[in-house]
Amino acid sequence: MLERYGHGGDLRTAEEAFGMPADGFADFSSNMNPLGPPASVKEVLVRYAESIGRYPDPAVRGLRRKLAELHGIGEQAVVVGNGAAELIDLVVRALQPKLTVLTVPCFDEYGDAVRKIGGETMEIRLSAAHIFDLEPAADRLCELAAPGVLFMLGSPNNPTGRLAKPELLLRLVDRGADVVVDEAFMDFVPCEAEFSLVREAARHERLFVIRSMTKFYSIPGIRLGYIVGMPKPLSRLRALQVQWSVNSLAQEIGEAVLAEEEFAGRTLAWLGRERASLTAALEAHGFGVVPSSANYLLCRIPESAGLSASMLQLQMGKQGVLIRDASRFPGLDHTYIRVAVKLREQNERLLSALESCIRPSGGEGEA
Amino acid sequence: MLERYGHGGDLRTAEEAFGMPADGFADFSSNMNPLGPPASVKEVLVRYAESIGRYPDPAVRGLRRKLAELHGIGEQAVVVGNGAAELIDLVVRALQPKLTVLTVPCFDEYGDAVRKIGGETMEIRLSAAHIFDLEPAADRLCELAAPGVLFMLGSPNNPTGRLAKPELLLRLVDRGADVVVDEAFMDFVPCEAEFSLVREAARHERLFVIRSMTKFYSIPGIRLGYIVGMPKPLSRLRALQVQWSVNSLAQEIGEAVLAEEEFAGRTLAWLGRERASLTAALEAHGFGVVPSSANYLLCRIPESAGLSASMLQLQMGKQGVLIRDASRFPGLDHTYIRVAVKLREQNERLLSALESCIRPSGGEGEA
Repeated sequence: MLERYGHGGDLRTAEEAFGMPADGFADFSSNMNPLGPPASVKEVLVRYAESIGRYPDPAVRGLRRKLAELHGIGEQAVVVGNGAAELIDLVVRALQPKLTVLTVPCFDEYGDAVRKIGGETMEIRLSAAHIFDLEPAADRLCELAAPGVLFMLGSPNNPTGRLAKPELLLRLVDRGADVVVDEAFMDFVPCEAEFSLVREAARHERLFVIRSMTKFYSIPGIRLGYIVGMPKPLSRLRALQVQWSVNSLAQEIGEAVLAEEEFAGRTLAWLGRERASLTAALEAHGFGVVPSSANYLLCRIPESAGLSASMLQLQMGKQGVLIRDASRFPGLDHTYIRVAVKLREQNERLLSALESCIRPSGGEGEA
Repeated sequence: MLERYGHGGDLRTAEEAFGMPADGFADFSSNMNPLGPPASVKEVLVRYAESIGRYPDPAVRGLRRKLAELHGIGEQAVVVGNGAAELIDLVVRALQPKLTVLTVPCFDEYGDAVRKIGGETMEIRLSAAHIFDLEPAADRLCELAAPGVLFMLGSPNNPTGRLAKPELLLRLVDRGADVVVDEAFMDFVPCEAEFSLVREAARHERLFVIRSMTKFYSIPGIRLGYIVGMPKPLSRLRALQVQWSVNSLAQEIGEAVLAEEEFAGRTLAWLGRERASLTAALEAHGFGVVPSSANYLLCRIPESAGLSASMLQLQMGKQGVLIRDASRFPGLDHTYIRVAVKLREQNERLLSALESCIRPSGGEGEA
């Protein structure tokens, strides 16, 4: 029920549901980097009073140049958006696919964007037994790949944290399909160069990569994402984009955080350490944890707990800890939750709250 | 040429065109309140570092409540957007008009939004001899009004500054047409209650009013607008709106500026004084000035100057003063410019630069 507006991280709804002020919650339902935002964000905010009185640069020139440099691609291969959400919406409206193939479980905005244009979707269910990897479904996906067909998927995928192999996605493109890869969490992957398709997207006409800057830099409040593709197909997106869609603070913060030097290294060190330790602790409590390349974990509630995801979410919320009821992702049932990896102390709060909920004697029967 | 991206206020393009840093320009090409932003904006920015790490409230509950109180309407009658530009786009996509009637000259985003959905537009040309008022065209407009027909217009209109009479617009609604009134500059009108259709929009199914908060409060960088209508038709807009479209800083600033007590009074006092004095000075220089209810003036260049609007814009830009080449508005020719009303000292800089351009001896022939 916390997903009243379809997503985690909705503290206002949590306030209404649990009658506690937003500040009191430990929010494991959204996947922000707990080390962020980096220091440069505050510096930008302090001087932003000077520039709020000017219109944003409609062409987002400064930030596009820096992103192009970062990835070693041309500036014309980048369109910046009001969060990745806007770009998902725009790319679907620009491509107008005859059929969109979704590999579920996946982020539900993909299907929502297709439904908004009245398009048809087909769900290919990934198997829990194969930890939701794409490869066991590869033949089926390749059979479907054809002109007019769009594949939209995350790598790392949300909510599973599994990476897609670039070769498979390129095979789909080679067969004439359009492929949109949502790399919103790719910054959290240490060997990003091996898995990101950003550079390929800049030279394949039917391949697009969407990146988010809000998760890694912990700035979801301000909305910032970008899409990489070839200039010609991107021009169709740009024609649909609303004027000044990207506010000027997002542009300034985007430029500032890209200049941060040791933030990424600290983040990857923290994540490697804490994800391993949180995974081990959850498994010790009987949770089935999908091995994740991202900063969140998809977990199966131990059967012995006798709790559905929504019941567990409610009991945890009462303790001030928000988790994601993952049964709302297409392709998952009521046994799944998703939790973010946070700082050690916060993770311990999550674990102790979980423990009190699933302990056979400790369950609050009346939930 | 400053309108490379279709609008005024594009300082990055001005930098590229005139080789001068953005800070050096006096920008009369965009219409911001020179008294703003109000002090509360800076206070919000300083504390915003605390909330940037959270997702925006997807339902924009706090700000919608305050706007509803301000106008004496229900919260469900308000949808907040990422600037008025997003709402123009959304309302057209939601209504899918068979025909859209535009009374030109008008803001070009209306026509752009209709073209994006492949819709048909009809332009009704308002007459300069009647200072671009709607009334002389009233019979023609009423003849066109019918179900499936959308009228989209500004009040005060941009670039003319003329107000529309509410009775005429309500007649169009009564005849079955949809009417969208862009009241982006209505806050600058002292007798707003007489002219605004906000309260009527909350109870007429086919009437919508779009308001902007960025002009009056001088916060175009951050994007903030809202639309008022009946809950049922608005739900179609909301279904098309991208998740978290309104960033959290815009929401916080919107709430803060609505609590400002004497900003509005100071603004109206300044505008009454300076608009009258700038109008008189421009007329003394031979400009024909359309009587304006807003914070900008549509002016006809004196014939004796022998300059087109684009030539004058170029010469002014070289002096560091940006003006709007109004020939780019549908329905106006190369004799029209638009200038914002600013503080006394800035207005004097505008006047002395204009004077040096139109003086018979002072024209730079090589422009």
